[in-house]
Amino acid sequence: MHDLTHPIETGMQTYPGDPPVSVEPVATHDQDGYRESKLICGTHAGTHVDAPAHIVPGGRTLGAFDLESFVRTARVVDCREFDAREAISPDCVPSVGPDVDCLAFRTDWDEHWGTKRYLDHPYLSPAAAEWCSDQDLAVAVDTLNPDPTPSDRASDDDPDGFPSHHAILGAGQLIFENLRNLGSVDERFELQAFPLKLDGDGAPVRAVGL
Amino acid sequence: MHDLTHPIETGMQTYPGDPPVSVEPVATHDQDGYRESKLICGTHAGTHVDAPAHIVPGGRTLGAFDLESFVRTARVVDCREFDAREAISPDCVPSVGPDVDCLAFRTDWDEHWGTKRYLDHPYLSPAAAEWCSDQDLAVAVDTLNPDPTPSDRASDDDPDGFPSHHAILGAGQLIFENLRNLGSVDERFELQAFPLKLDGDGAPVRAVGL
Repeated sequence: MHDLTHPIETGMQTYPGDPPVSVEPVATHDQDGYRESKLICGTHAGTHVDAPAHIVPGGRTLGAFDLESFVRTARVVDCREFDAREAISPDCVPSVGPDVDCLAFRTDWDEHWGTKRYLDHPYLSPAAAEWCSDQDLAVAVDTLNPDPTPSDRASDDDPDGFPSHHAILGAGQLIFENLRNLGSVDERFELQAFPLKLDGDGAPVRAVGL
Repeated sequence: MHDLTHPIETGMQTYPGDPPVSVEPVATHDQDGYRESKLICGTHAGTHVDAPAHIVPGGRTLGAFDLESFVRTARVVDCREFDAREAISPDCVPSVGPDVDCLAFRTDWDEHWGTKRYLDHPYLSPAAAEWCSDQDLAVAVDTLNPDPTPSDRASDDDPDGFPSHHAILGAGQLIFENLRNLGSVDERFELQAFPLKLDGDGAPVRAVGL
């Protein structure tokens, strides 16, 4: 069992402009006889899943997916050759049989987690994303985003839209983002990524590779 | 696959005095072109796991447990005969072989979730909890608490301590609380309850029965 999840902690990196994450004590052993904390986070903080409703008005929320949707037979796609802000071309996306239902794009960009460079990840070209959705595949990435990420909320490099999100979520599929450690699993592996039971646009998951 | 998890939603029931839960929009399709939400909750909200650090000063936090700790071979203990604020006696707790590492106490009290009566659940007698910890077993309950719950934070029925928590967490084991739907699984089942990756006193889980 391999943990493919970034830790959730105060001040962790988020998508530019997303709610800051905090985990702060609300009860302590000294004062209360037990210890408890309060979590504040966006539904797309850290390692998480996007439901179609994230991007598609009226799209399916997480509650519309059965539990089995969060257990995937995944194939790793080696994209380590792609550099900062490079588009992954469709010829990198394999054709897979009906037994595979998720492609996990391994860029190793998770090594930059927590730094400004993490925003400069490679991304899926719209044609690569279309080829995933044509095959009815979920997509998992070890980056912040299958689309390019702006350097900040009001940046000139704003991607002006989310074509890969639209291709994949528009087809009713799921996107798993901010995975880590995709080098730890076999080329073909079982991805278990059960989300918090939030019936909304997305939720943090504990992503496990078997 | 059976979902043993209560939904996380604004205003959901919590342990008396715990932080209120909210899931509120921070971006909408109309205003922003996508939908996103912000979650605020206690680390012991809804279906969750307690680490020893919840009760034991200097006890193990969730980060000290490997992933395998959250996959349990569980045995259901039928406690439906117990009524409001009744103690489950130690003779109800079976001796199990080394292949079982969790007891799941089924009271069906989850039917009262969201009502004041949910606080009046049956609970483990301290001797029953000791018998679990003597066998080095994790404990799962379909109630708010393996100890009695006060009606409110400053109530006269404050249990003045958490003897079952101390017995189980003090032995270095985990407690899974607020499970639901224990009638859906076989007497022996696999409990998967991966928590959010918070290295603290506890965390919400997505609890699944196989």
